[in-house]
Amino acid sequence: MASGVVSAGVSPLAPRDGFPDLPRIAGVELAVVEAGVRYSGRKDVMLARLAPGTAIAGVYTRSATRSSAVEDCVAKTGLPPKGGAAIIVNSGNANAFTGRHGIEAVREITEVLAARLGIRESRVFTASTGVIGEVLPHERITAKIDELIAALSPDAMREAAQAIMTTDTFPKGAGAVFETGSGPIHIAGIAKGSGMIAPDMATMLVYIFTDAKIPQPLLQEMLADLTGPTFNSITVDGDTSTSDTLILAATGQASADEITDAGSPAAGQFRAALHGVMLDLAHQVVRDGEGATKFVEIRVTGAQDDGDARKVAMATANSPLVKTALAGEDPNWGRVVMAVGKSGARADRDRLSIRFGDILVAENGWVAPDYREEEAARYMKNQELLIAIDLGLGKGKSTVWTCDLTHRYIEINADYRS
Amino acid sequence: MASGVVSAGVSPLAPRDGFPDLPRIAGVELAVVEAGVRYSGRKDVMLARLAPGTAIAGVYTRSATRSSAVEDCVAKTGLPPKGGAAIIVNSGNANAFTGRHGIEAVREITEVLAARLGIRESRVFTASTGVIGEVLPHERITAKIDELIAALSPDAMREAAQAIMTTDTFPKGAGAVFETGSGPIHIAGIAKGSGMIAPDMATMLVYIFTDAKIPQPLLQEMLADLTGPTFNSITVDGDTSTSDTLILAATGQASADEITDAGSPAAGQFRAALHGVMLDLAHQVVRDGEGATKFVEIRVTGAQDDGDARKVAMATANSPLVKTALAGEDPNWGRVVMAVGKSGARADRDRLSIRFGDILVAENGWVAPDYREEEAARYMKNQELLIAIDLGLGKGKSTVWTCDLTHRYIEINADYRS
Repeated sequence: MASGVVSAGVSPLAPRDGFPDLPRIAGVELAVVEAGVRYSGRKDVMLARLAPGTAIAGVYTRSATRSSAVEDCVAKTGLPPKGGAAIIVNSGNANAFTGRHGIEAVREITEVLAARLGIRESRVFTASTGVIGEVLPHERITAKIDELIAALSPDAMREAAQAIMTTDTFPKGAGAVFETGSGPIHIAGIAKGSGMIAPDMATMLVYIFTDAKIPQPLLQEMLADLTGPTFNSITVDGDTSTSDTLILAATGQASADEITDAGSPAAGQFRAALHGVMLDLAHQVVRDGEGATKFVEIRVTGAQDDGDARKVAMATANSPLVKTALAGEDPNWGRVVMAVGKSGARADRDRLSIRFGDILVAENGWVAPDYREEEAARYMKNQELLIAIDLGLGKGKSTVWTCDLTHRYIEINADYRS
Repeated sequence: MASGVVSAGVSPLAPRDGFPDLPRIAGVELAVVEAGVRYSGRKDVMLARLAPGTAIAGVYTRSATRSSAVEDCVAKTGLPPKGGAAIIVNSGNANAFTGRHGIEAVREITEVLAARLGIRESRVFTASTGVIGEVLPHERITAKIDELIAALSPDAMREAAQAIMTTDTFPKGAGAVFETGSGPIHIAGIAKGSGMIAPDMATMLVYIFTDAKIPQPLLQEMLADLTGPTFNSITVDGDTSTSDTLILAATGQASADEITDAGSPAAGQFRAALHGVMLDLAHQVVRDGEGATKFVEIRVTGAQDDGDARKVAMATANSPLVKTALAGEDPNWGRVVMAVGKSGARADRDRLSIRFGDILVAENGWVAPDYREEEAARYMKNQELLIAIDLGLGKGKSTVWTCDLTHRYIEINADYRS
């Protein structure tokens, strides 16, 4: 516990094949370094240098108490892509709720990095994740910038994914390649979350790189649209970080033609591929939820509208009673009925139906006639579960992903900071 | 576990003096019986007979999947108080999500009881708490009605509080007596919750009796007004039952004058005394929260309005990260900052201040200059804790009560039903 890291091996829900082979993204170079911000004996800072003209899109936490780094990124996102750009991220210290010190640390890091790379300060994006309320020792980071720049390489995506981890139990990456009429386009992304570091909160950081050439406004629109059904549709404990950051950087170095029309076939291809990468990363975040032993899809249909469907899905996914039942492998459909009832969505007890996987559990306001508890109990032993809820009222639908609530979650989060 | 009850002794937060001496309420007789609805070896049905003319006010769960008993009570609340009335409650089976069987069970019980007592069916109020989705064996209850009636007594309040328990670890009661110019008025109430019985959800049942003479509309108005700052300001896990029921029965048998004017001194006295009884019972419900080891007041001030204050209070009280930190006796103010940020209320990081008890923890967007972690860690060892959050924006305020989230909560709720 000396380093503040709570760890207990790799999550049982981690991808079996380990970190994927990601496509190289032209115009992106990465480096990592051991700066000793808080952890010792591991790389804790990552730098990404992006080619001149790279368009940067970003989606950030809506928290009213967000960190200085997030506020700085928000201000810079959408500015004209003049010259090169850079992203620098440290783990171990979140630089959140640190008053004027927080702003100073962000300024210091961006000034030094911009000068060394010969780019504008407005093109440097920072993020910090780890303990909050402690002053970020930014000089430990700036002291390593020359070393970072010297180490830049087009093939360090896995190392970058590792450097931004806090209590994540595995590095998270996803990629895609697709052919357009004018050449291939590549996408590669990394993520961290929602491992938690005492005394911190879950923070999700996601960096996605592509060689596609796309104007910033269109890139931003696509990223924002796809955040809803991906990163905004996962929940581990319903808590929101002060530092959540999702950045998509498009270098424009691909041979493929520029994508300027949101309705073009190439834009559709890009959107589909980006959706896949974002969903994959989002699922990996859930698979690394603190103490998680079950990966659970909550699929709601038949609501009066999509907003109501989402209310039901989120109420179910965040219910401690549903989540503890999942941990106990208990096909406790009564708790799902409860969650639907409390969600605030329009619902009719007697039109509601509930399935666990393919098993019809409840319909017409009561347990289904053919329901056999032994069968459902057997189903609940799976590591991946589906809870399908049909409200029988309309066409609204929503799907979210979550995990179970286990003793390990309490262990990780109730332990006193060391 | 054979009975479905999970139990591990009395909550460490239970009132030290045990069940209180409650005033006798003229016009109220109570009885309990062992009907074997689900449990064996304990009383599981309680009956209250109320004098002719008793006014009945009620507040019920807003769940969209509420039970047949709740729907029946809702329909009857506010009808003219013609003749005597009765309340009958069973534990062990919630008669919720049982389709047409649920409605039939309610009808059967109310018909038989009304006939035996010689009162109207519309004056019989039922409730059920326990396992859901299983047909209520109502014939076990109706078979005991003669025995119940024969046992009616003015002094069985404690026994009634015990009979309605599920996984509650102690019976809950509270009372008040006050003098008006025309004579004394008495109030006595019992409650159950939020012990949980696998596979069930927390259900709160509250029955308050008074000998005051108050017209039903005024009684209803006072009860509804006082529910906000009492029973609607407590949370154990943020989950809402299909069966929550709060009934206030005023027999009108006191010698004191009728209270007809909401602005009269006697109405003010009654409101204050009722508030005290409701708050006491609400706090006892939190003190019996599953696995609770800390009783926690979250007091929010300085919000732009009361609604925003409540958002912050509830976000903090329901945050798994805050609740696990409390369990770990960790003065983790960073998680309180996070909860404020995610609440959706208007907040300014740099105007926020946070106190644990009298200890100023954070202000001006950073940890307070005089804050000493050892002192806060010592404070967190108390069984009763105050987290005070001032948003520094306006006059909105809200207070809620909650408990910590412990391993015991997971044990109680993840165990497979036996």
